[in-house]
Amino acid sequence: MNTHSNYPVKAICQRTKDEAFVRQSLLTKPAGSLGMLETIAIQLAGCQGQICPTITHPWISVFAADHGIAKAGVSAFPSVVTQQMVLNFVGKGAAITSMASYLKADFEVVDVGCDLSTTDLLSGTEGLIRCRAGNGTANFIEQAAMNEAAYQIAFSAGEQAVYRALEQGADIFIGGDMGISNTSSATAIICHYTRETPQLLVGAGTGITADQKAYKADVISQALRKHQSHLIDAKSVLMTVGGFEIVALTAAYLTAAKEGLPMIVDGVIASSAALCAYAFNPAVKDWMLFGHKSVEPAQQALFDYMDVMPILDLRMRLGEGTGAAMALPIIQMACATHANMATFEEAEVSGKEK
Amino acid sequence: MNTHSNYPVKAICQRTKDEAFVRQSLLTKPAGSLGMLETIAIQLAGCQGQICPTITHPWISVFAADHGIAKAGVSAFPSVVTQQMVLNFVGKGAAITSMASYLKADFEVVDVGCDLSTTDLLSGTEGLIRCRAGNGTANFIEQAAMNEAAYQIAFSAGEQAVYRALEQGADIFIGGDMGISNTSSATAIICHYTRETPQLLVGAGTGITADQKAYKADVISQALRKHQSHLIDAKSVLMTVGGFEIVALTAAYLTAAKEGLPMIVDGVIASSAALCAYAFNPAVKDWMLFGHKSVEPAQQALFDYMDVMPILDLRMRLGEGTGAAMALPIIQMACATHANMATFEEAEVSGKEK
Repeated sequence: MNTHSNYPVKAICQRTKDEAFVRQSLLTKPAGSLGMLETIAIQLAGCQGQICPTITHPWISVFAADHGIAKAGVSAFPSVVTQQMVLNFVGKGAAITSMASYLKADFEVVDVGCDLSTTDLLSGTEGLIRCRAGNGTANFIEQAAMNEAAYQIAFSAGEQAVYRALEQGADIFIGGDMGISNTSSATAIICHYTRETPQLLVGAGTGITADQKAYKADVISQALRKHQSHLIDAKSVLMTVGGFEIVALTAAYLTAAKEGLPMIVDGVIASSAALCAYAFNPAVKDWMLFGHKSVEPAQQALFDYMDVMPILDLRMRLGEGTGAAMALPIIQMACATHANMATFEEAEVSGKEK
Repeated sequence: MNTHSNYPVKAICQRTKDEAFVRQSLLTKPAGSLGMLETIAIQLAGCQGQICPTITHPWISVFAADHGIAKAGVSAFPSVVTQQMVLNFVGKGAAITSMASYLKADFEVVDVGCDLSTTDLLSGTEGLIRCRAGNGTANFIEQAAMNEAAYQIAFSAGEQAVYRALEQGADIFIGGDMGISNTSSATAIICHYTRETPQLLVGAGTGITADQKAYKADVISQALRKHQSHLIDAKSVLMTVGGFEIVALTAAYLTAAKEGLPMIVDGVIASSAALCAYAFNPAVKDWMLFGHKSVEPAQQALFDYMDVMPILDLRMRLGEGTGAAMALPIIQMACATHANMATFEEAEVSGKEK
């Protein structure tokens, strides 16, 4: 256990990881020819403490919340879509629920703070988990997105999701997001850590125009300038420009790494949470696979900063955990080849000529 | 049916493809946010003539053959590895057989012409399909790789594989290759069509050094110069610098496109065959998905030339059909989201604001 932090991370088994590395070199293929499949299997061997790791019980939690920054007009969709999509998740009509069925993954959706103040579509919804930090965050142009009490509720939403997953025997955790305007929070967080400008990192989000993009970048720049003196550590960054679902995802990643549950990180929103978890304790990276490179430019800046490589690049930009879910079969097939291929010796195949 | 060729290709249903395009725009997600999943589902809708296509019965044929060019010392592995790997396929110890099991795909391996003249490990092997064009090709530095009779046998090996697949009810075809030194043939073919130099397109193959790479590029350059006047059409290109397994793959692709069976093209060897099939009749492209971008530089040149985009880039360079097999779950999940997601209307989700 890495305890050099208030957020301890379980140590991976380096010895098993080394043994898995050796096994890869014995399998009937030119060395390195399975590319990322090799590194994935080796990483998971270290996580599971098994030379041949297996991933058979995936778990997906989607965290939904609203954003005060939406009032600044940074999104192409109205905020009520957050609630409407929550109902769509519960009704299994969304992209991530189609994928969860295909993958035979456990799926749940958590309301961490949808804005029910003017419209409440969620009341009495069966199967929806509620751990609400408020009616959306405050508009972070004007003030910090959330106070300490709200932060704690959102944090516990993420923790609880991982403990539910573990209780059901999950062996890999996928966190997803839903929250109109949340690319603004994610981009602000990523700009803060990578020191890139919002002008460079703001993308099309759900589909805004070039003018709207320039405006969105301005809004984020202003907010980062205004709050500069308060952005001290990961917690203050999250409380100032984050979102409830981003806090929940950060907490989920910290908890998964503490309990030794590997995870697949999704697109730019989930990655901004992974970045905060990394700021809390860099050792979380050992437990993370990055599923997909979003079209959003902020994510590449984050990959460079964290020195990680995403598994897929399918030109997706949806969130919900979809980019992570798409990577699951790749990870399972990495484990399958690692475990089931014969060695040169077993198959009596000649090695490389000198 | 496109009959402007001796190699007719079944016409896709443009109307169904258009309807699938419309369906994508109605699903509960920002337009375009599922990236390649959208284009994959739309393409397959056109192939199957169904707005919501399904892929449930994958078929994998691996074609194995030896190469006279191996005598020039262009590979890191000895030729006998081709036969040894055939036995490894039959014994289910290879990367592609591990993947086939995971994917619940039908799998077969076809000996199109392993060199049994000095060592015969394959005699009496149960479960191995034999359609042999010879004991490997001739060394194409010295002479054409094969004569007309051998070409016809190799071609029929590919045709027959597709008819076996269809007979078993397959709805997607994956072709793989095994043949020590076959990146030399593939690179020669791709250089011929793309007009790039071997110096630019030769890669590390199974793992050769920088010096060996320079030598391999020279060998291919010399051969292309020597045979220049004979490289008239796809058939002559295949007969002159191709390989038996590359001819078989070309024939398989032409046959699949003729019979209306979609296919996933593998790495650089399979892609060189796809390029030959495309030279025979460009309409084959409608039936092709490209599974994976190989580390071999020749493949990117080919993608640019054919104007296609690969689904995956996992830094693999193994062949055997593995890059195509890895893409299958992505394709199936593209179909699953396309078919199972709710529309904005069904889910009562608000659309984009004006």
